Amino acid sequence: MESINKEFVIGIDIGGQTTKCGVVDARGQVLSQTVIRSDDTEDEKVFIATLADSLHTLIAAADVVDNVRGIGVGAPNGNYYTGTIEFAPNLKWGGNKVIEFAKLLSKKMDGIPVSLTNDANAAAVGEMTYGVARGMKNFIMITLGTGVGSGIVINGEVVYGHDGFAGELGHTCAVRYNGRQCGCGKFGCLEAYASATGVARTAREWLEMTDEPSSLRSLDRISSKLVYDAAKEGDKLALRVFEYTGKILGEKFADFIEFSAPEAIVLFGGLARAKEFLDEPIRKAMNENVLPLWRDKVKLMYSQLKESDAAILGASALAWEL
Amino acid sequence: MESINKEFVIGIDIGGQTTKCGVVDARGQVLSQTVIRSDDTEDEKVFIATLADSLHTLIAAADVVDNVRGIGVGAPNGNYYTGTIEFAPNLKWGGNKVIEFAKLLSKKMDGIPVSLTNDANAAAVGEMTYGVARGMKNFIMITLGTGVGSGIVINGEVVYGHDGFAGELGHTCAVRYNGRQCGCGKFGCLEAYASATGVARTAREWLEMTDEPSSLRSLDRISSKLVYDAAKEGDKLALRVFEYTGKILGEKFADFIEFSAPEAIVLFGGLARAKEFLDEPIRKAMNENVLPLWRDKVKLMYSQLKESDAAILGASALAWEL
Repeated sequence: MESINKEFVIGIDIGGQTTKCGVVDARGQVLSQTVIRSDDTEDEKVFIATLADSLHTLIAAADVVDNVRGIGVGAPNGNYYTGTIEFAPNLKWGGNKVIEFAKLLSKKMDGIPVSLTNDANAAAVGEMTYGVARGMKNFIMITLGTGVGSGIVINGEVVYGHDGFAGELGHTCAVRYNGRQCGCGKFGCLEAYASATGVARTAREWLEMTDEPSSLRSLDRISSKLVYDAAKEGDKLALRVFEYTGKILGEKFADFIEFSAPEAIVLFGGLARAKEFLDEPIRKAMNENVLPLWRDKVKLMYSQLKESDAAILGASALAWEL
Repeated sequence: MESINKEFVIGIDIGGQTTKCGVVDARGQVLSQTVIRSDDTEDEKVFIATLADSLHTLIAAADVVDNVRGIGVGAPNGNYYTGTIEFAPNLKWGGNKVIEFAKLLSKKMDGIPVSLTNDANAAAVGEMTYGVARGMKNFIMITLGTGVGSGIVINGEVVYGHDGFAGELGHTCAVRYNGRQCGCGKFGCLEAYASATGVARTAREWLEMTDEPSSLRSLDRISSKLVYDAAKEGDKLALRVFEYTGKILGEKFADFIEFSAPEAIVLFGGLARAKEFLDEPIRKAMNENVLPLWRDKVKLMYSQLKESDAAILGASALAWEL
């Protein structure tokens, strides 16, 4: 009888190129996982059929048939309320339409319920379920990757807003005069500065604008990883790029604190690995720009989840709430 | 037996100079009200005793003894979680301490439960209970008075945050290079621009910086009301002051929308009466600065509550939740 009580969930993280899936137990162990291409087809039905096939294989391999409680999906432009993926330019099959993803996938999976949200919200749920935000009722998750995503938790629940799309903090406006244009078309978005792309852009701009010596000058192409490597080697310009990036993040974090007074801000994603260079300028700017009552009170934390599992864990955590 | 079911609440709005109190019924009718001085004493105990005396008189006059369900208080630096007023510089008796206001008042009122929050949060609850936000689960209340206050409602509940002080949107940073210093000490706060004080300050700065003709030049002292009057008369500089103020508000509203995706932003307070000059520039800047998915989607509304009752109603609405 014990096996009946043992339940599992599936976590699915859909990215532009690949989709990661895993079977997860209640303690946050990823029992088995697999990766499929997201960009092999322009037809969402074909993608969902392929995905369902992989899941069936995965479930069989993990020997948990009949014990899967639910499926959680993290996807760009995912709407929690409706289970739809809406106008997702980064998905080859999702560009110009509203896809009833949760419903379609559930149908292919013999009616197993499917919950869906965007990747940053999924990361927040994952952090609250398995990570450093365990036990926290109020925190803000910031994902620093190619873009800047966010998941806001208030009173123990992710904020979805009136329409299901709340928490686009990467597109709030960085406090810069004549700000940079962002990929979204707006000017001055936080994401245009504080993402991996933004870091590389800052470095490129500064290299062009000045004659300051820097090891980055010898490179054909600048990426945030290369700026990080240069900073590691003590390159002054690279170090200042991170200082500037941290300052902008800290300034906006002060705004976010004034909004929801969180217990902590939790950082996650590739760029968060530059903690050694970002942490101090973020804290400084955050505390300088926040009202005295929150000065040195709000924690700045870094996700501790194993990078390779984190996306699956985040999405899977959604399914426990089903 | 019917009279047993008929319940009333008390609303109290504490300001720096005066404190307004009223008895309110379930339909939001203020049955009777009174005003006492807030600044007659430096001793909070004396103030609370005077307030309780007035309330007893008020309750007797309205003939609702034994039918008062609760008391709601809106006060600067009010903490909902603890019922305390903490370090409130604008209150003569509240400057440098934490006052257990709700507890002390309840004791003086024969144990009637007391709920307390800051004035802008109370306004949000009032708007949700009796006003234009009735039925809304997600909206942001912005009070444009001497300062800029805010009350954020998510999933039908006011956001208090980890510590009880969430929603200080007046102290988020307006997107200005080398921003003005705010009363809070920080630079560039929204409040330094978009409050009644901020409007007067903009007018004064522009009069000093330029030789532009304006009817405001003949005045000894500039207030937001006088700028409004000048705008009414078609004074170009005064009109541009409101355009500038509206633009700054709209820019920040875009940020707020990206945070919590509200159904509406509701404006209240003296400066909101300048709707005829603020509405268009706010809408324009809000829609220009928000992600396409929210463009022209989020309502901009104005409180319709009778100004003289609104503060009492807001506070009283808190008491229904007790």
